[in-house]
Amino acid sequence: MKELAAIAEKIRSGDRRALSRAITLVESLRLDHRQQALDLLAACGTGRQALRIGLSGTPGVGKSTFIESFGLFLVRQGLRVAVLAVDPSSSRSGGSILGDKTRMALLSREPNAFIRPSPSQTQLGGVARRTRDAVHLCEAAGFDVILIETVGVGQSETMVAQMSDLFLLLLAPAGGDELQGVKRGIMEIADLILVNKADGDLRAQAQRTCADYSGALRLLRKRPQDPEGFPKALLVSAIEEQGLEAVWGEIQALADWRREKGIWETTRKAQALHWFSEEVRSQLLEELVRDPNLATVLAQEEGAVARGEAAPAQAAAKIVRQFIESNNA
Amino acid sequence: MKELAAIAEKIRSGDRRALSRAITLVESLRLDHRQQALDLLAACGTGRQALRIGLSGTPGVGKSTFIESFGLFLVRQGLRVAVLAVDPSSSRSGGSILGDKTRMALLSREPNAFIRPSPSQTQLGGVARRTRDAVHLCEAAGFDVILIETVGVGQSETMVAQMSDLFLLLLAPAGGDELQGVKRGIMEIADLILVNKADGDLRAQAQRTCADYSGALRLLRKRPQDPEGFPKALLVSAIEEQGLEAVWGEIQALADWRREKGIWETTRKAQALHWFSEEVRSQLLEELVRDPNLATVLAQEEGAVARGEAAPAQAAAKIVRQFIESNNA
Repeated sequence: MKELAAIAEKIRSGDRRALSRAITLVESLRLDHRQQALDLLAACGTGRQALRIGLSGTPGVGKSTFIESFGLFLVRQGLRVAVLAVDPSSSRSGGSILGDKTRMALLSREPNAFIRPSPSQTQLGGVARRTRDAVHLCEAAGFDVILIETVGVGQSETMVAQMSDLFLLLLAPAGGDELQGVKRGIMEIADLILVNKADGDLRAQAQRTCADYSGALRLLRKRPQDPEGFPKALLVSAIEEQGLEAVWGEIQALADWRREKGIWETTRKAQALHWFSEEVRSQLLEELVRDPNLATVLAQEEGAVARGEAAPAQAAAKIVRQFIESNNA
Repeated sequence: MKELAAIAEKIRSGDRRALSRAITLVESLRLDHRQQALDLLAACGTGRQALRIGLSGTPGVGKSTFIESFGLFLVRQGLRVAVLAVDPSSSRSGGSILGDKTRMALLSREPNAFIRPSPSQTQLGGVARRTRDAVHLCEAAGFDVILIETVGVGQSETMVAQMSDLFLLLLAPAGGDELQGVKRGIMEIADLILVNKADGDLRAQAQRTCADYSGALRLLRKRPQDPEGFPKALLVSAIEEQGLEAVWGEIQALADWRREKGIWETTRKAQALHWFSEEVRSQLLEELVRDPNLATVLAQEEGAVARGEAAPAQAAAKIVRQFIESNNA
């Protein structure tokens, strides 16, 4: 326990190596590691609230370049920036060969930046848990901005939005007909749509795309969490580092407005309760699966369900009853 | 219990009113109803396997007209057809004013057809549970084909696919550029893509759309559950009742092939195990929430999480530990 306190102290003092090791610990699937991780999280306490920014964009829109440019921009403003990647699909393809640090070579060399690649877990639930813990640790470590990046596979965007204060959607220039190409539901999550590659030959097309999305956003019903004019579409050129100041200005304006209106706190509360409920659910299941008294009957019921002899709901009821009774005995 | 056996007998003999009431029972959120529902499901036993067909399509593609035409076509083949609607969004908008029976006026009058609108539950989990139970009851009632229809909001398509033997995606004619408008992931779920409205002025456009999708499908990697040539795109006109025989032919060919290869059974097994795990998870949570010893501490921990004083994972661990110990006492 004394050792934990020392590690927590190192994390709080901004030691990136200690932070890295702590994230490795929260990513571990080993049961004893999990308990240590929980203790460490508790020892770290709740730090100052960082600005948690979710960021989505399909491959090819220039996400790495944007994070590199925007991250460097923030660092130059004197801010400390952490980048956490969420890619539930990376385990399938074996993950990126070069890794996230090569993707963002300049940013990774900054002492005030911290880049952490996606964990190699297949289950979205596991990735979610690890990312939340990593966000917690980064806040304890005193980062000002935490960028949570996702490739937008399956439900990963919704998951990231559930742990972000605001959400950016990065797009590449495209013709008007491709407007529909944006995944449904993402327009509802995004606070800012950034049309990247507004440079060189693509500049004019980027402008049209941005105008198209601005128009489309005006058609959507205003959400309670938005001031007038939000969500907004903006032009950026990550490669030429253009438009980054405007993006940061809009982010701050939105964050300030939400803080003033109490929306910031309400949202964080709702998010915490959401994850609490998810945690209770998964931890209960872990307890049940670990229960030695249930191993045989669990296997039997699974067999019966697989053979179609028992309905899932009935078999589950039997298991849950036995679990409760086994603990009563 | 005797009464339950009588109701189960009525359901098995094809009494539509008894079936309707049973579905109302499985939709109930009351705890005593839930126990009755489980008993009734058990009493009904596992009927003959129906062909479970998932069907998705956004509003405006002619889904109701297709179900009406295709349902009537199947009934004329001497088959008994059940239609279950899944629309997790309907509760938001207050549901359809006219209701599903008006949507499918002719089919609803057929003695060999049974149409059940979407339950008015907001949680996808609740809708999933009720729909599975309803599928179970419809199989007990001896239906040959069960159409499970969804509007494709959020994860509802994945959920429906998890309880279907095969999945149809209904599309309207559109230009080539709109190909990208199909939600990602749906192309992976669909076994047949049906381009509807292949009639009148839209016929040529429907043909082009169908060719576009055929081309796109050829680009996708072959899935292990598909014979050569599947997934397939077909033209239909629900309003002129054209192409329905071909659709039914392809469905049967695919189902036969999967049965022969053992894929049918493997898939049903995997689906049952998936729902078993989901059931265990949600039933455990229900037990915990009901535990009178936990009411106070649960409220306390929720408060601490909401105020940011406790991390969700830690608070959850505390609750789960107390739940286990409270049962041990």
